[in-house]
Amino acid sequence: MEKGTILIALGGNAIKQADQHGTTEEQLLNVDITVQQLTGIIEQGYRIVLTHGNGPQAGNLLIQQEEAASIVPPQELYVCGAMTQGQIGWMIQNRLGYYLRKKGISMPVASIITQVVVDAHDPDFANPSKPVGPFYTKEQAGKLKNEKGYLLQEVKPGSPRGWRRLVPSPEPKEIIEQQAIKALADSGTLVIASGGGGIPVRRNGDGSFSGVQAVIDKDKAAFILAQTVQADTLMILTDVEHVFLNYNTDKKKPIHTIRVQDMQRYYDDGQFMNGSMGPKVLACLRFVQWGGSRAIITSLDNALGALEGKTGTTIVP
Amino acid sequence: MEKGTILIALGGNAIKQADQHGTTEEQLLNVDITVQQLTGIIEQGYRIVLTHGNGPQAGNLLIQQEEAASIVPPQELYVCGAMTQGQIGWMIQNRLGYYLRKKGISMPVASIITQVVVDAHDPDFANPSKPVGPFYTKEQAGKLKNEKGYLLQEVKPGSPRGWRRLVPSPEPKEIIEQQAIKALADSGTLVIASGGGGIPVRRNGDGSFSGVQAVIDKDKAAFILAQTVQADTLMILTDVEHVFLNYNTDKKKPIHTIRVQDMQRYYDDGQFMNGSMGPKVLACLRFVQWGGSRAIITSLDNALGALEGKTGTTIVP
Repeated sequence: MEKGTILIALGGNAIKQADQHGTTEEQLLNVDITVQQLTGIIEQGYRIVLTHGNGPQAGNLLIQQEEAASIVPPQELYVCGAMTQGQIGWMIQNRLGYYLRKKGISMPVASIITQVVVDAHDPDFANPSKPVGPFYTKEQAGKLKNEKGYLLQEVKPGSPRGWRRLVPSPEPKEIIEQQAIKALADSGTLVIASGGGGIPVRRNGDGSFSGVQAVIDKDKAAFILAQTVQADTLMILTDVEHVFLNYNTDKKKPIHTIRVQDMQRYYDDGQFMNGSMGPKVLACLRFVQWGGSRAIITSLDNALGALEGKTGTTIVP
Repeated sequence: MEKGTILIALGGNAIKQADQHGTTEEQLLNVDITVQQLTGIIEQGYRIVLTHGNGPQAGNLLIQQEEAASIVPPQELYVCGAMTQGQIGWMIQNRLGYYLRKKGISMPVASIITQVVVDAHDPDFANPSKPVGPFYTKEQAGKLKNEKGYLLQEVKPGSPRGWRRLVPSPEPKEIIEQQAIKALADSGTLVIASGGGGIPVRRNGDGSFSGVQAVIDKDKAAFILAQTVQADTLMILTDVEHVFLNYNTDKKKPIHTIRVQDMQRYYDDGQFMNGSMGPKVLACLRFVQWGGSRAIITSLDNALGALEGKTGTTIVP
């Protein structure tokens, strides 16, 4: 039954849908649908290591930090990342554990709090690219810039609340807990790790690591995690069945199975948008170039079908 | 060098002191002092498994949930517990990892998100005993009772903000992630688990586990964790060097080494207060009665001395 290890990266919509507020109940219902699909994959004999996004949860938590700031000190951005690893990790392990037991599969599920090292000289620190947290009015934005030194950008021009904080999104380099994650996965536990791209830390001169005000792309971090656990397959689940060429044109065409050098050429040609499909494709390219057997981008519903070669976009060596 | 496994339970003051607001920076500085003591213990050849309280952090997080409630849905109490496991677990593993590396000790440190099963028929559900979260005015308390069905109690009579929410504090029965925790600890990782007493869940008829609106005593949960990892020693670190007999009287007398049956008699006589030393002593009694070699209650500064038999209160078979 051993079919190799799949590193699965769950998108934010697997946990909180865009049109939802994000109550605990809503999120658990979404998680329920997600983990039933994962259970189906595990039933087929695949071994899974999981990671997940945290955009909507971190966004809500940042709003809570700010709204209560006059009473309770807001925790730093990277601490909020750690908190969402606990929150989302718990929801997944609670519901996935249930469905595995229901299918008679005796497999522990556990989330490991994960720190991911970034380079303090990453160019994104000089030129932050990732919007996080609430939307502000122009006046609020000006105040935050003066008081906290935030970098803010107008993302919805003309909107009364169109400003957001921009933070760096540096490249992930290494997972500090790699040895623990590997050991736990090797012991037969389904490990959830590096949630939200991991807690970003940088190495100091004394050998310690400090949290940094940044957000790591969860798909790029998924590649680092896939290396750590020596995965055969990297699978990025998102809201579309395929990656498309010529997206947003009338020549739009789904990509099925594609060789890595061809996908790299499309990537270099700017076929995939920076804020959406770009980093997913890049993570897949890195994985196959590193030596992975295949990288898949598809939707949750099509995950098992894509593993069986029936659908999805699969990048091969 | 192998001296057996010690389950160490850190009190809230190891992470946030009562007179502090609880900024990330303050908490990391406290954690720093705490983990340097732990490093000293590990240097002596002891193997450690860690757990910790979360009272102050959960309190702040609950305030943030409420203050932003008109904008962002507050997460349930048990989800806030999961979030503080991520928060505190990260701080400990970040700083402890640093001091271990500095001492040339190659030992991974990792936090596992932990669920603890409670009995849905625990008597504390009918008679909740644990105050959590912010203080309210009488008017706010009345509103929360009507709108959310909270049970509230006046804890500072006559104070303008003297009301608090009471939640059940049921007995911990079992750790769902026990197999993963054991495997990870056995692999040589210093495991942090069951933070804040664990995320309380109850077993449903269909075999699933649901989060419950409750808070588990972290010292009682520490005993369950100590069983899980087959610890030799349970060490509960608090703010006093010794447990005292006749506390708050002029016959106050420290307890040094004591046999479990004698300590049980003092416990039964009501020597130890319910909201403070009582549960700590009870956890120690349970541990030694289960078969543990010794249980120690002392302060952080005296932890190593107590392990060497020089100070602290030690309960033996």
